[in-house]
Amino acid sequence: MRQSQLFTRTRKHAPSDEVSNNAQLLIRAGFLHKELAGVYTFLPLGLRVLERINTIIREEMNSLGGTEILCSALQDKAVWEATGRWDSGDVDVWFKTKLKNDTDLGLGFTHEEPITRMMREHISSYRDLPRYVYQIQTKFRNELRAKSGIMRTREFPMKDLYSFNRDTAGLEEFYNEASDAYLRIFERVGLGASTYKTFASGGSFSKYSHEFQTISDAGEDTIYVDKQRSVAVNKEVLNDDVLTDLDLQREDLVEHRAIEVGNIFKLGSKFSDALGLTYKDEQGQEQPVIMGSYGIGPSRVLGTVAEVLSDSKGLVWPREVAPFAVHIVRLGDGERVVSSADALHATLRATGVDTLYDERPLRPGEKFADADLMGLPVRVVISDKTIESGTYEVSLRSSGEVQMQTEEQLLEELS
Amino acid sequence: MRQSQLFTRTRKHAPSDEVSNNAQLLIRAGFLHKELAGVYTFLPLGLRVLERINTIIREEMNSLGGTEILCSALQDKAVWEATGRWDSGDVDVWFKTKLKNDTDLGLGFTHEEPITRMMREHISSYRDLPRYVYQIQTKFRNELRAKSGIMRTREFPMKDLYSFNRDTAGLEEFYNEASDAYLRIFERVGLGASTYKTFASGGSFSKYSHEFQTISDAGEDTIYVDKQRSVAVNKEVLNDDVLTDLDLQREDLVEHRAIEVGNIFKLGSKFSDALGLTYKDEQGQEQPVIMGSYGIGPSRVLGTVAEVLSDSKGLVWPREVAPFAVHIVRLGDGERVVSSADALHATLRATGVDTLYDERPLRPGEKFADADLMGLPVRVVISDKTIESGTYEVSLRSSGEVQMQTEEQLLEELS
Repeated sequence: MRQSQLFTRTRKHAPSDEVSNNAQLLIRAGFLHKELAGVYTFLPLGLRVLERINTIIREEMNSLGGTEILCSALQDKAVWEATGRWDSGDVDVWFKTKLKNDTDLGLGFTHEEPITRMMREHISSYRDLPRYVYQIQTKFRNELRAKSGIMRTREFPMKDLYSFNRDTAGLEEFYNEASDAYLRIFERVGLGASTYKTFASGGSFSKYSHEFQTISDAGEDTIYVDKQRSVAVNKEVLNDDVLTDLDLQREDLVEHRAIEVGNIFKLGSKFSDALGLTYKDEQGQEQPVIMGSYGIGPSRVLGTVAEVLSDSKGLVWPREVAPFAVHIVRLGDGERVVSSADALHATLRATGVDTLYDERPLRPGEKFADADLMGLPVRVVISDKTIESGTYEVSLRSSGEVQMQTEEQLLEELS
Repeated sequence: MRQSQLFTRTRKHAPSDEVSNNAQLLIRAGFLHKELAGVYTFLPLGLRVLERINTIIREEMNSLGGTEILCSALQDKAVWEATGRWDSGDVDVWFKTKLKNDTDLGLGFTHEEPITRMMREHISSYRDLPRYVYQIQTKFRNELRAKSGIMRTREFPMKDLYSFNRDTAGLEEFYNEASDAYLRIFERVGLGASTYKTFASGGSFSKYSHEFQTISDAGEDTIYVDKQRSVAVNKEVLNDDVLTDLDLQREDLVEHRAIEVGNIFKLGSKFSDALGLTYKDEQGQEQPVIMGSYGIGPSRVLGTVAEVLSDSKGLVWPREVAPFAVHIVRLGDGERVVSSADALHATLRATGVDTLYDERPLRPGEKFADADLMGLPVRVVISDKTIESGTYEVSLRSSGEVQMQTEEQLLEELS
């Protein structure tokens, strides 16, 4: 894409009420627009990153046997009353609204209730199990404060998967597979090195749930990490009994601030009991379906990558989630430079390498500052000087490493 | 995909409160789940169709030079007050909600206001124009009644594009290109033969706007079609002056009920004046940006295809929007039949043909009824009989035409 066709501009300053580092950078680089406190618009660059994260998540959920659906945001009061979660005294993040005839509606902050009710129409026998259903859908949460930028917003996309098994053994097996899939997702988006599977509070059915926590001073949680064993415990549940239970030693644990980038829960029959989701086993006996739920917020992942991997010059995108793989920066508008840069842009497009091509009539310093701020993984500078040398100046945003490469070398590296 | 992995079941009956033909069929075939009156969940088959329609729309919008973004549903009261559209007296489809500190928020039923305000940060000079920005995003409309199934719902995806030009000549040119793109979209989704560009009420800036109306008795609008000239007029604006203006003869017009599947508007400077979106021209003079807006509801298109192209047996999907291109129906579970059907499924997957493979242990009559109801374009029956003949029984859902084809013939037809 030619950068002059990208309508967004970079900015020197983010809005003064924006206190988080991730949103400041994402707004300044033209990835996000702040609509309201805790409410953002995804601009073209931001939407491209979001879609890449969604693609990775979809691939991993499909590999687990997940089937994708899309639920409504508008929620039926009745189904939430059945589980006791309609009352704002119990759930304090509801946004609610009304039909013209005064019927109350909610805006979904999660979807256990409607999906459990819906599955009554599709599960009746042990032959219908297991089932794994997921969506990437917009959630609404009436957060009191919204100071963490894109990491805690009032409206955000969420991938939520729900598992339906005939027994706890089936749930356990899937839960472990889902946990592995989550670790693969965080690895692929570039957060693998700093993300830990973390024991957290489990609710009524299970002793623990698991969070996936990425170490960052911008995080809202505190976790204790055993780096050697690659596991962590949320401060909320840390006590001597838990340490014994998990066979952890207090002296091996290091305290960190961390961002919760995903979580998985064993729900057991909590929702299937409340909403009557049962199946007939081989003996014709009615049994409750055993459930689990598995969440990741793609925009929170985006914000975490921005927060954790950025530097003083701007954003730093890992290749698999970058909005474009390559940033061609053309210096000057002489005929040779233009035709060389145009040709490389065409070549990269033809080989399927997503490329942003800065052909704007700006000074080199402005172009480099924009490129640093936007943070595409590979930058290719084309100038009279590089043309004379017969090579491109190729640099990596993450390390700053610069190499002079021929077109052949560049194409090989990108393939 | 193996049909046993598809968790949805077909149903003999739709919910009793579902009066529309499109939703009855889509629910019975397992494409949609009804959550509330006017609120539906897309099940896997329905979501696949929706995504195919979205892909066609994206391709056509990108070919117009459109750039995709994603706005929030939550709306800032202030920006809507600036144009006089906050008050529910003027706009009667608002859903509204509140932050915990009692701040009013709306749920967007359209996005002229927030996008115009946002573009102030990205347009300041004639060099920044033109710009074409679009999204496929969930709209909320508090409809009094919801009786048209998926064609008029309270929550639905909408593609809305906004054009920003320096003058009316630029707007006119883009408006005509967008109109052509819309006609291509309706052609590609299978509605070309029954969809007419229709003159409709134009608002303050322009004498007419244009709707794209698909002829159907289930439609809520009445239009008058001049079939020869391939143009129509909405009953709302039809009078002698309009006939003269458009050079139409009353005797050439035939009255039809029709479904509005898209619309395009010239907005002029209505929103840019109200919200201060201006640019500096070559002389340094501030000028208002000239705008247009262009809408299509992908789920309404889906419902219209279901409504218009279905028959007494069920849905009939055109190839380009079908959830799967091919339905393999295996009869029996003998070794030869299973290995032949498994092999064809693998071959079609390997050649990139989306295939649903009915390997369920059901009677042939049930399988054929399900296949008819679901409406995939090409059905391939594999049985002992077809194996003996060395061919497949291949039928087209749209015409019912049946042919015995070798694998080579089938693959050639599908490629």
